[in-house]
Amino acid sequence: MTGAESLLRTLVANGVDTCFMNPGTSEMHFVAALDRVAGMRGVLCLFEGVCSGAADGYARVTGRPAATLLHLGPGLGNGLANFHNARKARSPVVSIVGEHATAHLKVDAPLTSDVQAFARTVSQCVRTAVSADNVATAAAATIADAWGPPGQVAMLIVPADYSWAECAGAVPVVPHAVRSMPSNAALSAAAALLREEGTALLLGGTALTPRALDAAARTGARVIIARNVAKFASGSGRFQPPQVPYFPEGAMPLLASVKNLILVECEQPVSFFAYPNTPSYMTAEGCVVHALATRAEDGTAALEALAQPRASVSHAPRVALTAPNDDSALTLNAIGAAVAAYLPENALIADEMVSSGSVVLPYLTKAAPHDLMPVTGGSIGQGLPVAVGAAIAAPNRKVIALEADGSAMYTLQSLWTMVREKLDVTVVIFNNRRYRILDIEMQRTGANGFGGIANDMIDIGRPDLDWVKLSEGCGVAASRATTPREFSEQFRDAVRERGPRLIEALIL
Amino acid sequence: MTGAESLLRTLVANGVDTCFMNPGTSEMHFVAALDRVAGMRGVLCLFEGVCSGAADGYARVTGRPAATLLHLGPGLGNGLANFHNARKARSPVVSIVGEHATAHLKVDAPLTSDVQAFARTVSQCVRTAVSADNVATAAAATIADAWGPPGQVAMLIVPADYSWAECAGAVPVVPHAVRSMPSNAALSAAAALLREEGTALLLGGTALTPRALDAAARTGARVIIARNVAKFASGSGRFQPPQVPYFPEGAMPLLASVKNLILVECEQPVSFFAYPNTPSYMTAEGCVVHALATRAEDGTAALEALAQPRASVSHAPRVALTAPNDDSALTLNAIGAAVAAYLPENALIADEMVSSGSVVLPYLTKAAPHDLMPVTGGSIGQGLPVAVGAAIAAPNRKVIALEADGSAMYTLQSLWTMVREKLDVTVVIFNNRRYRILDIEMQRTGANGFGGIANDMIDIGRPDLDWVKLSEGCGVAASRATTPREFSEQFRDAVRERGPRLIEALIL
Repeated sequence: MTGAESLLRTLVANGVDTCFMNPGTSEMHFVAALDRVAGMRGVLCLFEGVCSGAADGYARVTGRPAATLLHLGPGLGNGLANFHNARKARSPVVSIVGEHATAHLKVDAPLTSDVQAFARTVSQCVRTAVSADNVATAAAATIADAWGPPGQVAMLIVPADYSWAECAGAVPVVPHAVRSMPSNAALSAAAALLREEGTALLLGGTALTPRALDAAARTGARVIIARNVAKFASGSGRFQPPQVPYFPEGAMPLLASVKNLILVECEQPVSFFAYPNTPSYMTAEGCVVHALATRAEDGTAALEALAQPRASVSHAPRVALTAPNDDSALTLNAIGAAVAAYLPENALIADEMVSSGSVVLPYLTKAAPHDLMPVTGGSIGQGLPVAVGAAIAAPNRKVIALEADGSAMYTLQSLWTMVREKLDVTVVIFNNRRYRILDIEMQRTGANGFGGIANDMIDIGRPDLDWVKLSEGCGVAASRATTPREFSEQFRDAVRERGPRLIEALIL
Repeated sequence: MTGAESLLRTLVANGVDTCFMNPGTSEMHFVAALDRVAGMRGVLCLFEGVCSGAADGYARVTGRPAATLLHLGPGLGNGLANFHNARKARSPVVSIVGEHATAHLKVDAPLTSDVQAFARTVSQCVRTAVSADNVATAAAATIADAWGPPGQVAMLIVPADYSWAECAGAVPVVPHAVRSMPSNAALSAAAALLREEGTALLLGGTALTPRALDAAARTGARVIIARNVAKFASGSGRFQPPQVPYFPEGAMPLLASVKNLILVECEQPVSFFAYPNTPSYMTAEGCVVHALATRAEDGTAALEALAQPRASVSHAPRVALTAPNDDSALTLNAIGAAVAAYLPENALIADEMVSSGSVVLPYLTKAAPHDLMPVTGGSIGQGLPVAVGAAIAAPNRKVIALEADGSAMYTLQSLWTMVREKLDVTVVIFNNRRYRILDIEMQRTGANGFGGIANDMIDIGRPDLDWVKLSEGCGVAASRATTPREFSEQFRDAVRERGPRLIEALIL
C-alpha cells in the first residue's frame, strides 16, 4: 500500500467520505488511489477557492469534516480566502496539501514555496507528514483536530515521495471528542442572571438549530442571534429572535438596553469594520459579558438545562404568501417576496447578498422553515462554493444561493461543479453592476471625495457582466429577470425542478 | 493630506503610475484620493489574482513596478498564487494591502487575520506602516525594495486609521539601485572557461533581450536559455538558442555534454517536479556550475564584455509563412503555423499553453520578432493576468495570450478588465477539455492505476466549458474555431483589429 492509499483509507475509516479537489502532479497518487479504495466521493473543482468554500458548506450542513486536496503552496493560496471563512465559521475541514518530494525541496524548483507558511495563515493546526508510514498517523490526528470541538481547518502537508512510497498500511481510527456540558457554576450563574432585568442570551455556533432555538425561547429570556454565524434555523413556525445587524447604527440600539449579555458558543459583538468615531464593541458601556457555553461546549444542552420544561412557545401562524407578478422594474422587495413565497420546505440558503441582504432577508421570516448560512469571515466569494458543499451534504434538500454579482465573480467556477455533480441548487445573482457595499462604506469611512475615478473603481458595469452567458458557459441553464413577474415565474420553476439553475436578477 | 493621499503621491513621485486594484472598505481613502492626485492609473480587477498577475506582466514588459491594492489578509490570499509567479519571475511589484484600523484589531472582527503571515508566503520584504506620517516613508522604502535588483514583490500593509488620519505630507523620493557589473574576476574566469570545450552559457533574468542575445551569440559560445524566465526575445532574424525543456527526458540530453555551465542571471537547471528515480538537477554528473552574473548584476553588460566586438551573427533568413486553410479537424500544429504566419511584429506573447506548448512553440521561431513570457512559478492562472499587465505596459504592441483551458478558468475575470481598459489582446484558449498535463504526470509519477474515478478528476469536460459564452459574459467578443481554416481566419482578423478578442480553439 502506498502512503497515498493509506491516507485515503484513513480518511474513509474515520468518516471523511467527501473530498473537494483540484490536484496537481504531487497529488496524482492520491487521485489514482480513488479507484482502489471504496467510499470516497471525489469532487473536482476548477479553482481551489471552490474546494475550500465547498468544504465549509459541507461542514455547516453535516457538522462533519470533508477533505480538500490542493496542490502545493500556491494552490493552497487560492483556497485561503474561503478557508478563512471556514475558520471563522468553526467548520471542521481536513485540508490535505501536496508538497514536492522531500529530496526535491533543496533545489528550489519553480513551484517550491513555504507550504507551512501558507497553511498557518488560516490554521493553528499544521502538520507535515515525516515518512510514508507517518502519513496515516498524521492524517488521523489531523481529522481529530479538525473535528474539534470547535471545528477548525486542520492542515496536513504530504510530500510526494511519502505518497508514492510503500508503507506499513496501518489505518488508525480516532475517537471524536464531543462537546462537553458547561460547568454547573456557569449554568447557575446564567440562571441567576436570567432572572434580572436587562439580561439577554446571544446565540452562536451549534446553538442555532430548531431544538436550540426552542430551548432558548423556553428560558423566557430575551434572545439575540450573533451576526456572522455558520448557520441558523429560520422561517415560519420557528422562534426567530433578531440577529445583530451589520452596521453599528443598527447593532448598538439593539444591544443598548442589555446589561448582562450571556454568550452561547459565540463572542462579544463587534463591528465588522472600524470607522472614525465609532466604537469597535457593539455592547453598551457598562454591559457585562458572561459565557454560558464556550465554542467547545454544548450550548444546546445548556439552553435546555435553563429552559422551562413545560413552557410553550407561541409563533406567528404561517400565512399563505403571494409572489408579486407585475411588470414593473424588478426590486429587492419583489425578489424577497417571491423567494419567500416559493421557498421549498427545509431549504438551505447560502446568503452572500451583501448590500441587498437588508431588504431581502426580512421576507424570509415568513417563508417555509429553512436554514440560513450567512457570511462568516467576510471574505467574499463564499456563497457559491458554500452552496456546492451544502448540496453535496444534503442531496434531498433544495439549496438556494442568494448571491451578489461582485461576490459571485470571485468563485464563479462553482457553477461548473454544480453541473458535474448534478447538484440541486438555484442560484440568484443580484446584479446591480456595482460594488454597492463600497458606496456605503466610502461614505461611512469619511472618504467623502467621491470623484469620477474613485467611482470607476466601484462600478463593475462597463462592460456589463452577462450572467446568463457566464452561467451557460459553465453549463448551468440560466435566465434573466427584469420584472417581478419574470423573477417570480423563473424562481418558481427553478425550485420545482431538480438540478442547477441560475437566475440573473437585474436590479438597476 | 491624509495618509492615503501621501501614499498615492509617494507612488507617483517615484514613478509607480499604475495600480491594479480590488479594494474594500479599508482602502476607500486610497481610492478617494485617486481624484485628488494626478498621474495614477487605477485598474479595477474583479479578482485579486488578476491584480497580482497583471502587475507581474507589467513588470516583465517595463522593468518597472506597478502597485497592487488588495483588501486585508484574505484579499491578499487570493493574490498569492500570481505573486508567487511574480516572485519567481523577479518582477518588481509594490503590493499595498489594507488592514483594519489599529484599535479594531484587538476585537477579532470577522475579517481579522494575520496579514503579515499572508504577505510573508511570497515576500521577504514585508512592512506595516506604524503611523500616518510613516505611510509615505514606508511606501518609499517598499518601492526601493521592489525595484531591487533583482525585482521582488515588496509588501506594504497600511492600517485604515493611518490612511484616514492627517499626516505631515512628506513625499520622499528614493533612488533606484542599478544592476552592477560583475567583478573582473568573474569576467576573466568566464572568458577562460569559454575557451574550453564543453562550456555553455545559460541565460536568464534581464539577459534575454535582443541586445543580450546578440552579445551572447558574439561570444561564440554555446548558449542555452533557462526554462522559467520572465521574458525572452524570439522570432525570425534573432539569435534563438534552445531553451531548457520542461521534462527531464529533454533537459538532460541538452545539458549532457556541458562540463562547465556559466550562469547569467539564473540558477542551475532543475526539474519542475520530482519523479521516482529521476534526479532533481538536470546538469550532468560532474558538470561544474559557475556564475558570470548574479540575479542582481548586469548580465547583458557582462555578455557584451565577453563578446567579440566585430563578430557577426548570421540568422536564418526570414521566410514567408503560410497559414493552413483546410477544413480538417483543428490541431496544435495548425494553430502553431497560423499564429506564426499572422503574428504581428513586436508582439508580446503570454504563454500558458501547458501541455500544448511543446507543439506550438517551435513554430514561433520562424514568426516575426516578438517577446515570449513563459510560466515562471508554475502556479496556473498566470497567462491571462500577465496579458492584462503587458497590454497596459505596452499599449502600442499587440499582446497574444496563448492559454490552456484549465489554466484560463483560474483567472478568467481577466477578460473583463481587458474590455474595461480597452486592451489590445488576442486570447487563444486551447480547449482540450482536459487537465492534459496531468495525464502525462499521472504516468510519470508512477501512479499507474488510472481508473475511472481518477480519470474523472482530470477530465474537465462534462459539462463542456463554452469559452465563447464565458468570454462574451465578460464582454469580450469571441468565436470558436474547429478547423485550420477557421482558426487562421479568426486569428488573422483578431490581430488586425485593435482591442480584446478571444478565440476558442477546439483541439479534441
